[in-house]
Amino acid sequence: MQTEFQISTRGAGLYEFTQHVAQWVGASGQRSGLLTLFVRHTSCSLLVQENADPEVQSDLQAFFHRLVPPTTDPAMSYLTHTYEGPDDMPAHIKAAMMPVSLSIPVTEGRLMLGTWQGIYMFEHRNAPHTRRVAAHLSA
Amino acid sequence: MQTEFQISTRGAGLYEFTQHVAQWVGASGQRSGLLTLFVRHTSCSLLVQENADPEVQSDLQAFFHRLVPPTTDPAMSYLTHTYEGPDDMPAHIKAAMMPVSLSIPVTEGRLMLGTWQGIYMFEHRNAPHTRRVAAHLSA
Amino acid sequence: MQTEFQISTRGAGLYEFTQHVAQWVGASGQRSGLLTLFVRHTSCSLLVQENADPEVQSDLQAFFHRLVPPTTDPAMSYLTHTYEGPDDMPAHIKAAMMPVSLSIPVTEGRLMLGTWQGIYMFEHRNAPHTRRVAAHLSA
Repeated sequence: MQTEFQISTRGAGLYEFTQHVAQWVGASGQRSGLLTLFVRHTSCSLLVQENADPEVQSDLQAFFHRLVPPTTDPAMSYLTHTYEGPDDMPAHIKAAMMPVSLSIPVTEGRLMLGTWQGIYMFEHRNAPHTRRVAAHLSA
Repeated sequence: MQTEFQISTRGAGLYEFTQHVAQWVGASGQRSGLLTLFVRHTSCSLLVQENADPEVQSDLQAFFHRLVPPTTDPAMSYLTHTYEGPDDMPAHIKAAMMPVSLSIPVTEGRLMLGTWQGIYMFEHRNAPHTRRVAAHLSA
Repeated sequence: MQTEFQISTRGAGLYEFTQHVAQWVGASGQRSGLLTLFVRHTSCSLLVQENADPEVQSDLQAFFHRLVPPTTDPAMSYLTHTYEGPDDMPAHIKAAMMPVSLSIPVTEGRLMLGTWQGIYMFEHRNAPHTRRVAAHLSA
C-alpha cells in the first residue's frame, strides 16, 4: 500500500508529521508490516528525533547551520554551486548527511517508535516549500 | 517476522551484534528476503562498519567526539538543551547524522554483508543503557 | 527479487547508476513495490542527490574532503588506523555519515524519484574499486 504525504514548510527547521503517518498506518487495517518513507527532494531530510523538548529541534538546526553555513560565509567560498542562493548548496550537503529514506516496523497496527521518537521533515531551505514524502507499507 | 534485540551498553562506543541478527535470520528458515533494523532511541545509532581492526571503531568514536564535543566545551555554548547532561544534546546530533534504520538483503538464508562488514550499536551516551532495536524480516 | 549491481570507480567522487537500477526495476515487470539498495563495503556510500548540475557533485566531494581530511593532515593526527593509507580511515568516517542502505518506493513500474534525484555511488577511496550493491525488490 502506498501514499504520498505533503508537508508545507515555512523556512529552515524541523516539522513533525508523526500523526499523519500513524493515522494512515492505523487506517490501513494492517497489523504487522514495515513502513518506509522516502523524501522526493535533495534539499531537505527525513529525521526521527526527540519530540519532547522543542529545544532539541532548534539545537539540531543550529548545529547543522554552523557545520554547513551559507555560501555567503567566507569559510564556504570554495563551493561553486551558488546561483540558486546561499542556502542551496548547504541544503544539498545537509541532505547528504541525513536520511532520504527511513523504515519503521509496524506491530499491532502501530509504528514501533520509541517513547520519545517523532518523525520530522527537516527543511534546509529558507523559502517556503511543499515537500513530498512517498510512503510504502509492506507486509 | 519480527523481533526485538536488546543491547546493553557501558558508555559511549560501538557494540557489535552481527551474530545475534545472523542467528535470528538463520533460525527463521527464510531463504530470501529483506532484514530491516530500527533503533527505538534518539541518542544512539545503528552502523554497518568494518569489524576487522578495532582501531576503526575507536577512531570513529574519536572523530564524532571532536566533531560534536560535550556541551561543557566552549565551542558548544550555543546549545540550549543541556539539562540532561553535557553528553545529551551531542548524542541527539550524532543520532541525526548516523542511521536510525538499516536494511540488508537476505540471500540463501544469510545477510548479504560484505566480507568486512559488521552491524553495530553506536552508543552516544556515557551512562550504561539498554538499547532496543526492532527487527523486521520481509519476503 | 534480487540482484547485484557492480560499479567501477576511478578515484573519489560520485558515480551515478540510476539508469541501471531503473532498467532492472522496469524489466522485473513489478508494478508496485519497494526497492532497497545495500552497499557491501565500508569505505563508500550510497547517495540520492541532484543530477542536474555536476557542480553539486564536486561540491559535495569538496565539503566532505574538508570535513574529514586525509590522515596526512595534522588535524587528523589523533587517528590510529592509518596503515591502509591516508584516505582509508577518512573513508570509513564518511561511510558512517552517509547511507549504507536506501529504500525507494516503486509505483507503476517506476522508481518514485523526484524530478532532480539520481542514485549515486559515492566513492571515498582514491584507488579504483569495483563496488558491489545488493538490490532487493519487494511487493
